Amino acid sequence: MSLVVQKYGGSSVATAEKIKSVAARIKRTADAGSGVVVVVSAMGDTTDELIELAHAINPHPEAREMDVLLSTGETQASALMVMALHALGAEAISLSGGQAGMRTDRVHRSARILDIDPARLKAELERGRIIVVAGFQGLTEDLDVATIGRGGSDTTAVAFAAALGARCEIYTDVEGVYTADPRVVPDARKLKDISYEEMLELASKGAKVMAPRAVELGSVYNIGILVAHSTKDAPGTLIHGGVDMEGFNRVRGIAHDMDVAKITLRHVPDRPGIAAEIFEPLADANLSVDTIVQNVSENNTTDLTFTIAKNDVKRALPVVNEIAKTIGAKEVVADEKMGKVSIVGTGIQSAPGYAARMFRTLSEAGINIEIISTSEIRITCIVPENSVLDAVRALHAAFELEKVEL
Amino acid sequence: MSLVVQKYGGSSVATAEKIKSVAARIKRTADAGSGVVVVVSAMGDTTDELIELAHAINPHPEAREMDVLLSTGETQASALMVMALHALGAEAISLSGGQAGMRTDRVHRSARILDIDPARLKAELERGRIIVVAGFQGLTEDLDVATIGRGGSDTTAVAFAAALGARCEIYTDVEGVYTADPRVVPDARKLKDISYEEMLELASKGAKVMAPRAVELGSVYNIGILVAHSTKDAPGTLIHGGVDMEGFNRVRGIAHDMDVAKITLRHVPDRPGIAAEIFEPLADANLSVDTIVQNVSENNTTDLTFTIAKNDVKRALPVVNEIAKTIGAKEVVADEKMGKVSIVGTGIQSAPGYAARMFRTLSEAGINIEIISTSEIRITCIVPENSVLDAVRALHAAFELEKVEL
Repeated sequence: MSLVVQKYGGSSVATAEKIKSVAARIKRTADAGSGVVVVVSAMGDTTDELIELAHAINPHPEAREMDVLLSTGETQASALMVMALHALGAEAISLSGGQAGMRTDRVHRSARILDIDPARLKAELERGRIIVVAGFQGLTEDLDVATIGRGGSDTTAVAFAAALGARCEIYTDVEGVYTADPRVVPDARKLKDISYEEMLELASKGAKVMAPRAVELGSVYNIGILVAHSTKDAPGTLIHGGVDMEGFNRVRGIAHDMDVAKITLRHVPDRPGIAAEIFEPLADANLSVDTIVQNVSENNTTDLTFTIAKNDVKRALPVVNEIAKTIGAKEVVADEKMGKVSIVGTGIQSAPGYAARMFRTLSEAGINIEIISTSEIRITCIVPENSVLDAVRALHAAFELEKVEL
Repeated sequence: MSLVVQKYGGSSVATAEKIKSVAARIKRTADAGSGVVVVVSAMGDTTDELIELAHAINPHPEAREMDVLLSTGETQASALMVMALHALGAEAISLSGGQAGMRTDRVHRSARILDIDPARLKAELERGRIIVVAGFQGLTEDLDVATIGRGGSDTTAVAFAAALGARCEIYTDVEGVYTADPRVVPDARKLKDISYEEMLELASKGAKVMAPRAVELGSVYNIGILVAHSTKDAPGTLIHGGVDMEGFNRVRGIAHDMDVAKITLRHVPDRPGIAAEIFEPLADANLSVDTIVQNVSENNTTDLTFTIAKNDVKRALPVVNEIAKTIGAKEVVADEKMGKVSIVGTGIQSAPGYAARMFRTLSEAGINIEIISTSEIRITCIVPENSVLDAVRALHAAFELEKVEL
């Protein structure tokens, strides 16, 4: 029997009506002869509401207790989905993450999956039942509930697909992965397929289709992941390992992110170990740094720039000023009005012409590039926030992404 | 170390503020040197809201899935209570019913408790932690969650007290058990103590202080149960086994219930087995019959009257009409405008004078008695609905309950 793990996110199960509509889709898949394991997130804003309630009681709730509290959201959704399937005459049963065999470490709120024991899943599938698993949660060695962090339901689905040797389908409120955000570029095209690595770059650079951790897990176990809309019948995008010849060496999409602030340390003494002296205190303060650029040294001093989320600037500045004093940097400059735009595609960094074409395109659009950073499959420019959307549109046109075949 | 199990109901934990206030009381008990196990219900209307949501999806949800859904309410409350205790600097941990060792049978939604394994409770108590257990739920042999029915949190508390050899305190939104409903009789007095049996009669006849099943369990294991207000510091009522000499043979309270309808079958052929022929079909239709009275036979026919909840009349009548046809009864008469009033006290049924004084009192108040029924410790009169409250006040005065010592 073919097996599929389908995941439905919080917005797809936000109301009784939506749950019923999703149940109908699940039943169609089962009726077509597949064994179906469904992973659900908590309904709509449930998780945020529970967090708010917890904070009204304790501003710093213990992680273990937050896991007990938050895991109930997914549990509720799993039972309600089974009730909807029963109403359609389907055989179905809900299982908690622990019942479904997911074992995690004890790092509450961001636990790692240690193992999945698929014994009960297999037994229920053999009874002909659709299984609805509460996502985002497992059990520790002590039999305490632990959640695997935000985006955990995507990761749960991929993990169960790996454990069962099933294919994986992530249903969400977008139709798939696009060459750019369709709200920014009206003629953005949906991609038929994309590699794990390209997906990771698109996802982490602002294309919020799927949790990066789930894509990584898919990559490790080589699980094909279909991303598709939870109610529309349109074909989605398949994320997979094999990149075909034509897919190689080509810009697949334009990612962008408005949540970028830039902090520059001027006239930093250029000596070994200086980068560690700067970034260790930031890490200790739990500040997540994104792009880092250091210019070539001049008169034994250098300028060092990094980007962080806008919300973190207020918390970061006292730390950075302290660092500047310690290491003898001359000046700290912060700019919160930044954004970034990236072209993504396997092989584009090493292939000639892509970077030049990107910079030329931005220049012709009158957009000033403040920082450039590159990875294996991505070239990113930090630009002023108010130029980001123009940059996305200009690059989408320059790389002719509106011509991508559907 | 002295051990106490405290139970807080849904209205006592309905908001973040109430949870914090209850947490302060729990911490005071722990600081005074007691080991404390707390059992909580779901916050406020959570359970009702979840039931409504379920019914919007499936009018007849499967009991197993309802248990998965409903048990999350208590789980949430347990985690939130622990967060409130942590905010006060107390050591505390939440446990699900299953983690706390409660094993039940598989009769979902009204499971029976099979056993409590107190190993983890004892280990956590030894670590000096306050334990907050999600009430109303246990685990089946298959490791599925099963709930033990409404009022289950009271029963959970008494069961844990029995398993741990602890005393039991039920905190609620009344100050204790009264000689009558204080809303009906302004000078009703709070009882210092009451026997299990008297409490059962008062509870099941409309004094909704505590789940009867929990009182029964307390009686079986001889667990003293204190019923008190969850925020006020007033002394409550102790429910216990030993009735002192003065407590014996005395009216302890007046119970009443407005939810009474009366159905009479007239001219029922008086032959062996006739009662079974009448009440088996009612039981099959899941109709709960309360008082049953059969008059002495006359000309080989008799009149048989029973009472049921008002809401059940519509469902009962077609069944009763069918029965009447089958057994050859002459007529079916229903009256939904009934109520009942009871005097309760160990020994009063067998002691002379109580019944006579009750009937005399009602007669002098101009109240017509339609049906009389008695138990070991109770005498009940079914009277017209609009006389019930007058009857309660008249009986409270006649038995001088306003003079009960506080």
